[in-house]
Amino acid sequence: MRKILIIGAGRSASSLIQYLLNKSEDENLHLVIGDLSLVSAQSKTNNHANATAIALDVFDKNQRKEAIQKADIVISMLPAHLHIEVAKDCIVYKKHMVTASYVSEAMQELDALAKENNLIFMNEVGLDPGIDHMSAMKVINEIRNKGGKMLLFESFCGGLVAPESDNNLWNYKFTWAPRNVVLAGQGGAAKFLQEGTYKYIPYWNLFRRTEFLEVEGYGRFEAYSNRDSLKYLNIYGLENILTLYRGTIRRVGFSKAWNMFVQLGMTDDSYVMEDSENMNYRQFVNSFLPYHPTDSVESKMRLILKIDQDDIMWDKLLELDLFNSNKKVGLKNATPAQILEKILGDSWTLQPKDKDMIVMYHKFGYEINGEKKQIDSKMVCIGENQTYTAMAKTVGLPVAMAALLILNGKIKTPGVQLPIRKEVYLPILKELEEYGVVFNEEVVPYLGYNPDK
Amino acid sequence: MRKILIIGAGRSASSLIQYLLNKSEDENLHLVIGDLSLVSAQSKTNNHANATAIALDVFDKNQRKEAIQKADIVISMLPAHLHIEVAKDCIVYKKHMVTASYVSEAMQELDALAKENNLIFMNEVGLDPGIDHMSAMKVINEIRNKGGKMLLFESFCGGLVAPESDNNLWNYKFTWAPRNVVLAGQGGAAKFLQEGTYKYIPYWNLFRRTEFLEVEGYGRFEAYSNRDSLKYLNIYGLENILTLYRGTIRRVGFSKAWNMFVQLGMTDDSYVMEDSENMNYRQFVNSFLPYHPTDSVESKMRLILKIDQDDIMWDKLLELDLFNSNKKVGLKNATPAQILEKILGDSWTLQPKDKDMIVMYHKFGYEINGEKKQIDSKMVCIGENQTYTAMAKTVGLPVAMAALLILNGKIKTPGVQLPIRKEVYLPILKELEEYGVVFNEEVVPYLGYNPDK
Repeated sequence: MRKILIIGAGRSASSLIQYLLNKSEDENLHLVIGDLSLVSAQSKTNNHANATAIALDVFDKNQRKEAIQKADIVISMLPAHLHIEVAKDCIVYKKHMVTASYVSEAMQELDALAKENNLIFMNEVGLDPGIDHMSAMKVINEIRNKGGKMLLFESFCGGLVAPESDNNLWNYKFTWAPRNVVLAGQGGAAKFLQEGTYKYIPYWNLFRRTEFLEVEGYGRFEAYSNRDSLKYLNIYGLENILTLYRGTIRRVGFSKAWNMFVQLGMTDDSYVMEDSENMNYRQFVNSFLPYHPTDSVESKMRLILKIDQDDIMWDKLLELDLFNSNKKVGLKNATPAQILEKILGDSWTLQPKDKDMIVMYHKFGYEINGEKKQIDSKMVCIGENQTYTAMAKTVGLPVAMAALLILNGKIKTPGVQLPIRKEVYLPILKELEEYGVVFNEEVVPYLGYNPDK
Repeated sequence: MRKILIIGAGRSASSLIQYLLNKSEDENLHLVIGDLSLVSAQSKTNNHANATAIALDVFDKNQRKEAIQKADIVISMLPAHLHIEVAKDCIVYKKHMVTASYVSEAMQELDALAKENNLIFMNEVGLDPGIDHMSAMKVINEIRNKGGKMLLFESFCGGLVAPESDNNLWNYKFTWAPRNVVLAGQGGAAKFLQEGTYKYIPYWNLFRRTEFLEVEGYGRFEAYSNRDSLKYLNIYGLENILTLYRGTIRRVGFSKAWNMFVQLGMTDDSYVMEDSENMNYRQFVNSFLPYHPTDSVESKMRLILKIDQDDIMWDKLLELDLFNSNKKVGLKNATPAQILEKILGDSWTLQPKDKDMIVMYHKFGYEINGEKKQIDSKMVCIGENQTYTAMAKTVGLPVAMAALLILNGKIKTPGVQLPIRKEVYLPILKELEEYGVVFNEEVVPYLGYNPDK
């Protein structure tokens, strides 16, 4: 039996584990599922004969080393900053490793050691980062192989609520870490390239500078710029490209409404509010509005945000019960962002029968034989239920597939890496199709940003 | 001769040195003026017999220790983060010390040692912090001594251009570190108290939430909230106060116009712009605007900032020559804030005959014998010329006076401190009046924020 150690049995591990258990007979696999909570690990084994649950505290050096030593490959589904100790042990005990997280500097520094030991440290092999890399590099390399020259690359991804469960005015529910949704876009200006010009957007303008996207059968979406797109110049080898833009997908109208929270300062995570525990929702809102002896919180809010009497923005705020003075925040020493997350959680938590949806959309503009062309590649994935969500599938399946490909010697190149090599993305993208993760590629007229030229 | 070591002979040291040299005969003083640049130090001695210039690199331990050892008291006019090594040496060699900077944590940690050695480490004894503390504590203590209870404290200060030199549309020129002006308000939400309610304003709303101030003979001003006002609850002993607000003074209309730069992201100091050196002013502006194949930078700017054709905001932008494609930025690896500073410097640098102006305005609301009252205290100081600016006077004179009071044993309490004790603020405020730094206090009706109640 080949032993796969999976560390961190959170929500996004469900499809990953299911996939590997389904393959365990044919592939001769035994899964060791380690989690801080033994109960949580046990719940993920599905009572399968080829799975063992263990309590595993990654901060417990001996426990961690012992588990890693016994494995043939290690999959870390821990929060990104916890991978590095696992990775160092993987070097010591000569184990391959797979994660769905961005390569940290510390991880990158292990590259030489990984190569020396002929170890594969595959990272960013979940959804975003992960499927985005793979589906993009596939088309980019096809264009290059034909002799095409890349002019434009735009890539959009979003975790949303499925149309059949989409029943609030925001057309949004939390389908992954709510904290990350509240903090989205913070920590530096967005940076990208448009027609050869570098563009920068500060956080407080991010949600007012959206683009529209159309996905057949699913209608219209919008996207706001996703952090530093420029780093993809190197990663994808697009150094001379004119347009490079990565964005986060939402339903139309979300960003304009979200911007209300941004403008007021409700998404700030850098300071603790006075007496947050005893504050009610209405007081929370009032903290960001000027004092007035008689004006209501509602009037002050409308005035500062310039919300007309019949503006749908207002209904979006009311839907969240934001002005309720009977609802307590109840969080000690909480930041505005933490309080907002709690308030949104009241309205945006997935209900038992709700399903989620992943949308990914790439645009590839290129020039070949003097002609400008464009390929659009789109993928929509709907979750099955609250366990096998679209998020769990799209994050977990490519991780699992990568691990098995490594075990079977199909992925051979050692080192700290991303799934941007053919030997990685071709088999994974192909197998993902069996699980409903299908990219539809179509040739469209190249427009770029100069449609009249 | 009593030796005063002055470290850092920058612009703000001119009045400080002049004051001490004028007193040097009567008070038996000899100044040692140390600066990284000997030329700069020499220029400050005015060829006075009681002054010696030395080249002094504070990072050169031996040089620093030798100079401190020889002094009777040390005045550090260095940038705030450089005080601490000087302070530690002052403990070792048992010297008093005076600075115009905020007390850092490291400085505060020396309190016990300073007290043990009977040393006075006087900090925050310039303008702001400095004169603000002194003039505020004077009135607050008078109110308390009468048996009054503080209800409201608002304090405003601004460094501006004098009315006779005020000849641009912004009614503003750089009268102190331009970098600090560009970065003003960054690094966390503004926090204050209004009628018992904690209020928070994010950076991107700061310049849209101003208050108006009227100073007889000088007209109308506006103020935006100055960082964390709440820390003054403890410093001034105002724990049960209803309203506590500190603001920065500008001429009316400045903040609304400045907000244009904030909104676009031009004040960001957290990242370096691509190829900033070869960028021209117009390209700099365009970096913050959406791409369009034909629309001009001007049209895009008007559209994104919603500037009407006849709006004075537009003229303010034109005055800065912001759209000039012939002016090069010429700064390598520069942040948006650094580039904006350079552009503004073209227009806002004081001309040889320009004078500056300091405005300070305090409001004290209190209750006494069941009655609510208010005292307003205002100070305006105009600079003499480009050497003896209002800024140099108001920052340097109280520092010099504090040093002399310490030398003469008039200030006795040892420890790391602020000028909030009577023995400090009474003599300094009194002497400052001789130099034209006069507070006009007047009793006005108490309005608070509930004028109708």
